[in-house]
Amino acid sequence: MDVISVIRTKRDRGELSGEQIDWVVDAYTRGGVADEQMSSLAMAILLNGMNRAEIARWTAAMIASGERMDFSSLSRPTADKHSTGGVGDKITLPLAPLVAACGAAVPQLSGRGLGHTGGTLDKLESIPGWRALLSNEEMLDVLDTTGAVICAAGDGLAPADKKLYALRDVTGTVEAIPLIASSIMSKKIAEGTGSLVLDVKVGSGAFMKTIEDARELASTMVGLGTDHGVRTVALLTDMATPLGLTAGNALEVRESVEVLAGGGPADVVELTLALAREMLDAAGLKDADPAKALADGSAMDVWRRMIAAQGGDPDAQLPTSKEQHVVKAPSSGVLTRLDAYDIGVAAWRLGAGRARKEDPVQAAAGVELHARPGDTVTAGQPLLTLHTDTPDRFAYALAAVEGAYDVAPAGTAFTASPVVRERIA
Amino acid sequence: MDVISVIRTKRDRGELSGEQIDWVVDAYTRGGVADEQMSSLAMAILLNGMNRAEIARWTAAMIASGERMDFSSLSRPTADKHSTGGVGDKITLPLAPLVAACGAAVPQLSGRGLGHTGGTLDKLESIPGWRALLSNEEMLDVLDTTGAVICAAGDGLAPADKKLYALRDVTGTVEAIPLIASSIMSKKIAEGTGSLVLDVKVGSGAFMKTIEDARELASTMVGLGTDHGVRTVALLTDMATPLGLTAGNALEVRESVEVLAGGGPADVVELTLALAREMLDAAGLKDADPAKALADGSAMDVWRRMIAAQGGDPDAQLPTSKEQHVVKAPSSGVLTRLDAYDIGVAAWRLGAGRARKEDPVQAAAGVELHARPGDTVTAGQPLLTLHTDTPDRFAYALAAVEGAYDVAPAGTAFTASPVVRERIA
Repeated sequence: MDVISVIRTKRDRGELSGEQIDWVVDAYTRGGVADEQMSSLAMAILLNGMNRAEIARWTAAMIASGERMDFSSLSRPTADKHSTGGVGDKITLPLAPLVAACGAAVPQLSGRGLGHTGGTLDKLESIPGWRALLSNEEMLDVLDTTGAVICAAGDGLAPADKKLYALRDVTGTVEAIPLIASSIMSKKIAEGTGSLVLDVKVGSGAFMKTIEDARELASTMVGLGTDHGVRTVALLTDMATPLGLTAGNALEVRESVEVLAGGGPADVVELTLALAREMLDAAGLKDADPAKALADGSAMDVWRRMIAAQGGDPDAQLPTSKEQHVVKAPSSGVLTRLDAYDIGVAAWRLGAGRARKEDPVQAAAGVELHARPGDTVTAGQPLLTLHTDTPDRFAYALAAVEGAYDVAPAGTAFTASPVVRERIA
Repeated sequence: MDVISVIRTKRDRGELSGEQIDWVVDAYTRGGVADEQMSSLAMAILLNGMNRAEIARWTAAMIASGERMDFSSLSRPTADKHSTGGVGDKITLPLAPLVAACGAAVPQLSGRGLGHTGGTLDKLESIPGWRALLSNEEMLDVLDTTGAVICAAGDGLAPADKKLYALRDVTGTVEAIPLIASSIMSKKIAEGTGSLVLDVKVGSGAFMKTIEDARELASTMVGLGTDHGVRTVALLTDMATPLGLTAGNALEVRESVEVLAGGGPADVVELTLALAREMLDAAGLKDADPAKALADGSAMDVWRRMIAAQGGDPDAQLPTSKEQHVVKAPSSGVLTRLDAYDIGVAAWRLGAGRARKEDPVQAAAGVELHARPGDTVTAGQPLLTLHTDTPDRFAYALAAVEGAYDVAPAGTAFTASPVVRERIA
């Protein structure tokens, strides 16, 4: 086996054999295939595609590159969820304790933000004392004790994916659906969950801009999960508009706690409940009532125990920004558009996100929305509040939000797009 | 400017701007763009192509990466030739002294073999004492004194190409016509020749397997040369069958000397004269008579002076192989096919070529042909003689020639393909 024949096969629109895939993934992980060879292959995969058999084998090879976890010692069924990433997407925060309160075990191995999308771990780290890094034993202990855990994935899980993801990030080869699907699913399958709900975002603030691309990615991932014995379902959900009224780290924790307290923005509550129902259904807990668990405070109880178990103080004051800048409505009428991508870029520029993996983030930076599409606004009323600790970034963030919204004359008809657009099982 | 936006432009089938091309070629040469980024871009170029303006700019950027030579101090017009590489392609050896004997200055910056095709410098190094490495001053001196020089290109010429070629070789991105054309032409234009004749090989033993690909490469290169003020013409020549009766280093030198002595195989003489006429025509020497210069020994005189000027002894005995193995005709009839690629692979495996740039070659290894397509053969007569100093390689070479030839019943009609198939100017 040699790498050039593997590259040529895909370059010339052929199908990679199982042996070729096993060999190249293993050799790359061990260093026998060089970065410049794998990036050339990744570009050929991006441009020429892979069929279902190739994607399945590639995923299996990435799983085989590392350890597999096992939750069979737990007394509860496991339910996991993965979001492809969006703006204001704090759903994991209320969802994990909510589903645990209904009887499932929820292991959420989460990531950090890169680019304009936020990261779950960055958000939780705005809680004083909270730790993202747990050993496998600590993770299982928190999960067993509280029912839910949100932490960083260990280095032992799918190391091939870790190395390949870092390479794709710098070689213009992130946007390959076979590689996105196998990256997500190799980690989820290696993690050992029994069921998985995928939240595939679609719209300007998402990775998939069109419903067709989102559908292809979702059905590829559902197929992969099913083939590996994981009960998998995907919801295609709207990311043309940010979720809720906040984008940022501490800002989103605050909003998540509001949801757990029985309040919070309607779209966040709706999506949290929709995903909770799918997770509980996939875990075999068909009689659970997540709306009740939100209303009666049992989800909040799990949240407080889960945060405390990872060193966080659930009663601590969250950081607030040193400087704020208010963007006002330019005219009176109906807000018809508030662009998720532009808001995400603004939050990123204010300090909520990072340009490179090693950059720090500001806990208090971000964007607060004072209206959502469909709302009536009055000229001069606050539309957005920008938060940062470094006010020299305001100009740069303001440039991002300049074309982010449209206000139409009062009385203009407006139809909100549904939060959940499609379901793929 | 950042490299990911450049990669994305080509990945998404866009046209690279002049600024993007200048930047990425310069940054890669200086190390600011990493190998894994350039290989990803090279694969995108291979799969999505470049238009004429992009290829011209890319070539100009590679020329600008290094020094330019200048032959304007010579009293004669310069004429250069480049072959895309084949099996038994020793044409440079008789051609350079022949064209010099007719009044042109012939600077032949040549390469070494890689894979199944031979390298001009490897062939000449089988002459005891001969040196391929000359300083720019030595090169100009040999050229001025004898009219011709065949030597290695200095490191200063198009260093971007040198680095990119080595990368393409290990990343499955050699076969990109825009990159092949710009690689060849950047060196030829930087070298400073006034005219250039391209010998674009087509057939199994060549890089371009089809006449369509050969035509595209030839017209791209003729366009590039013309745009840079170099009088450029291309001949598309046959490489389905090896050239002449030898493939190997010393074996090919011996055959070249036969041609300079007025003998040699008809196809080698025909192609040498056809290329000589094109070179002399492009150099403005329309009245020169290369057939006469072969017949009257004046080309041989230049050869002897040129070899001696680079330390070689033109009268020295050439190395001969320690072991030979004869392949016999399996039946009587007409030889209808002798495959250039298979013969090239056999010569390579016998030790005439190298698998990696740093490998040594055997001077005496190679394949001698005792018949050519169209010849009548008798069962049991010698068809090929394999030469090597390492007889453990015979089995490996015999595997390569197993399906290399067809013998049809006596009387089967056979039409030889022409040596020169097309001319593109």
